[in-house]
Amino acid sequence: MATQAAFLAGFSQLAAQPGRDRAVAPARVPVAAVGSAKVGVRVGVRAGTAEAAAVARRGVRCRASLIEPDGGRLVDLVAREEGGRRAALRREAAELPHRLRLSRVDKEWVHVLSEGWASPLQGFMREDEFLQTLHFNAIRGQDGRMVNMSVPIVLSVGDAQRRAIQADGATRVALVDERDRPIAVLSDIEIYKHNKEERIARTWGTTAPGLPYVEEAITNAGDWLIGGDLEVIEPIKYNDGLDQYRLSPAQLREEFARRNADAVFAFQLRNPVHNGHALLMTDTRKRLLEMGYKNPVLLLHPLGGFTKADDVPLSWRMKQHEKVLEEGVLNPESTVVAIFPSPMHYAGPTEVQWHAKARINAGANFYIVGRDPAGMSHPTEKRDLYDADHGKKVLSMAPGLERLNILPFKVAAYDTKQQKMDFFDPSRKDDFLFISGTKMRTLAKNRENPPDGFMCPGGWKVLVEYYDNLVPSEGSSKLREPVAA
Amino acid sequence: MATQAAFLAGFSQLAAQPGRDRAVAPARVPVAAVGSAKVGVRVGVRAGTAEAAAVARRGVRCRASLIEPDGGRLVDLVAREEGGRRAALRREAAELPHRLRLSRVDKEWVHVLSEGWASPLQGFMREDEFLQTLHFNAIRGQDGRMVNMSVPIVLSVGDAQRRAIQADGATRVALVDERDRPIAVLSDIEIYKHNKEERIARTWGTTAPGLPYVEEAITNAGDWLIGGDLEVIEPIKYNDGLDQYRLSPAQLREEFARRNADAVFAFQLRNPVHNGHALLMTDTRKRLLEMGYKNPVLLLHPLGGFTKADDVPLSWRMKQHEKVLEEGVLNPESTVVAIFPSPMHYAGPTEVQWHAKARINAGANFYIVGRDPAGMSHPTEKRDLYDADHGKKVLSMAPGLERLNILPFKVAAYDTKQQKMDFFDPSRKDDFLFISGTKMRTLAKNRENPPDGFMCPGGWKVLVEYYDNLVPSEGSSKLREPVAA
Repeated sequence: MATQAAFLAGFSQLAAQPGRDRAVAPARVPVAAVGSAKVGVRVGVRAGTAEAAAVARRGVRCRASLIEPDGGRLVDLVAREEGGRRAALRREAAELPHRLRLSRVDKEWVHVLSEGWASPLQGFMREDEFLQTLHFNAIRGQDGRMVNMSVPIVLSVGDAQRRAIQADGATRVALVDERDRPIAVLSDIEIYKHNKEERIARTWGTTAPGLPYVEEAITNAGDWLIGGDLEVIEPIKYNDGLDQYRLSPAQLREEFARRNADAVFAFQLRNPVHNGHALLMTDTRKRLLEMGYKNPVLLLHPLGGFTKADDVPLSWRMKQHEKVLEEGVLNPESTVVAIFPSPMHYAGPTEVQWHAKARINAGANFYIVGRDPAGMSHPTEKRDLYDADHGKKVLSMAPGLERLNILPFKVAAYDTKQQKMDFFDPSRKDDFLFISGTKMRTLAKNRENPPDGFMCPGGWKVLVEYYDNLVPSEGSSKLREPVAA
Repeated sequence: MATQAAFLAGFSQLAAQPGRDRAVAPARVPVAAVGSAKVGVRVGVRAGTAEAAAVARRGVRCRASLIEPDGGRLVDLVAREEGGRRAALRREAAELPHRLRLSRVDKEWVHVLSEGWASPLQGFMREDEFLQTLHFNAIRGQDGRMVNMSVPIVLSVGDAQRRAIQADGATRVALVDERDRPIAVLSDIEIYKHNKEERIARTWGTTAPGLPYVEEAITNAGDWLIGGDLEVIEPIKYNDGLDQYRLSPAQLREEFARRNADAVFAFQLRNPVHNGHALLMTDTRKRLLEMGYKNPVLLLHPLGGFTKADDVPLSWRMKQHEKVLEEGVLNPESTVVAIFPSPMHYAGPTEVQWHAKARINAGANFYIVGRDPAGMSHPTEKRDLYDADHGKKVLSMAPGLERLNILPFKVAAYDTKQQKMDFFDPSRKDDFLFISGTKMRTLAKNRENPPDGFMCPGGWKVLVEYYDNLVPSEGSSKLREPVAA
């Protein structure tokens, strides 16, 4: 089952990289802009190296060397308050004759684009970008280099509105929320056909009915796509009590710099954290220290956008993650918890590239990948949609991700002998208990306890509480999800 | 209709190349191996240039500068007669315990692989290559560079045989024809799952039933794929009277060198040649001469492998093409007619990349692309499967094809005023008559004549003759197709 992926931990090896050099030793990356980082310490230079000696001689004090964003510059599409740009844009948006109503998922993409997670994208994809994404999972930038881009970030428009826009020869349209409040302006627009079947087939590798993102955001979408340059009036907020966790890539880079991180390893998740995950993350830090890094920092990065109805909602996951840190399962000193605002595609090997690429833009140069990342069960057949190993393989070969160090990990399970989560040892396989996501949910729903050492007690309590709350309104769990205000 | 693509001609512009430099001026490409070319003339150096002067001073006599094959070396997987390798391989193949029976399409791929059309592929794809093909339409070579590879070249195996091979721990298997005669040996084998749904969705952008290649070669294929290094016992022959047209990439390179070609422009087709095509090809040569090339040579390159039942069979197309040259519609001096041995996928923008990439390996540095290349009608909906412009767009952005000059062309149609095929002029659009493939076939079937100047009379006669022959056995036209002996 795909859900077992949640219980797999312990990275075994650096991925085999056909024909490319993925340094196991600390990678040397260009010094990137790190916002208003106040740090002036030397990091990213190994003591005792010729480089370190040279630095000492020159007396140079470097800023934290984080991996460069895709395209060399972190995109920021939010209008500046200073200079009156924000007010002017708001006025223009209110007066533009053509207004596109954004869905919840559309707004999540506006959020993603506005903060540069998809750098160097400057807005919703035009056709050239859309086609490159579908066919190559990568886009060629102005400089001729390929950046990874595996999921279409597109905005649809219906036929009537498309005709009205084109009849006017409009080049700019306003994007508004469900209450008609302006959010952004899309300019230098291009409208092109939305071939839904082809988009779905090339993104998911199936056209079977029942794909959650397809049903949420594609099936009933318009038959045209509208691309253009995006300018957002003000930062996207949700007012759900979690906005303080929604750090932008620029803010994350600032935080990593503040902590003097010389390596950042990202862990994408959309499930509660159990001790197998924690073991993996702790073990990763240990290995990075052994490689010579002085201060590897973990980006624990739960996905915050659209998820399918039976996933645990973001607010409960965040409560659970807080407990994991409070109870010392993960070290707050070397961990940054933040929300990744993207919606979820459940597109397996295609989507895992997006998950990794976005984290480069946030400053991560190591990415942990498990079995069947972004996978799910086939919607109509009794099997997983994707081969459990394909995500890791595709990720390790993906164009535009050459700079990222991929850390695959092997299975962890509950060791009944040691009464804790540990890396699976095939030589004594009968000692290990695999607790699937389904099993975990059943236990929590029934208020039963998992074996000792599976999850920290406070974290487990949050899960039980969630399922207690869920029972009366099982079908409407989607209502609990935050919506950008 | 997709079939109108056959009637579109006249290239308008070099494709827009986002972020990359496609030289309009003669490209400088490394001197490639050109087989046993006997030529010693100076080509590929423009008179009056500093380069030409330098060459004159040094007295260097260059060989023809053809574009370098993908991976730098043209792959050749046919065992050498000399040294006894061929006999030894034949003996080994006869004795290997595991023998895979090749289908007609499998044999066509063996042919394709053996001659290096898919360079740098050394055999049927292993999983890494298969995944890169599906997700990126490109494969990273040993040197870290991407080569284009958009259609899977794979061999399937059934579950029983897969288990038998794996139970034995076999690393080599024999590939045999329908009469159990050994064709080749596949070594260092790797067996992996054949997820047909995912392969079809990612290759065609649809999973609708009725895709010709899928029905011919995938639906009933085995549930596993077997990759490995291929060694073919002897050159693949069909003994159908057309083998003299089946020039390998090495033979084509030799021929281009013999003719002192300094540019090679390829025209892929699977339809009869009408005067619109001819106009386009003649016009292309004219433009290349204007660019400064001294001797651009046309590779008129009909596809010779599997085609769908209602396409005109290869043998009749070759007769028709012979007439076109005989009657002077194309100039034999600057035209090489040869057969491209690949089977046809009808996978539009995905497949056109394969068609272009294979011609690089044969020495072509210009590729003519029309509307809706490799397209067809949607098998279950009343529309074309692909957007008519996507093929050209995708081709112009494809990774690994940066070195190839893409020549898109605009519509040609029958000009009723001039009574000839000419580039469509929208300012007097009522003068033009579009004759679709369906219309052409109906005319030929009914023994009616097309308008004067649509096709050379001898070529048209061949078509009429084909349909005359077809009438009694319409359903069995596939039987006329050549099969590798």
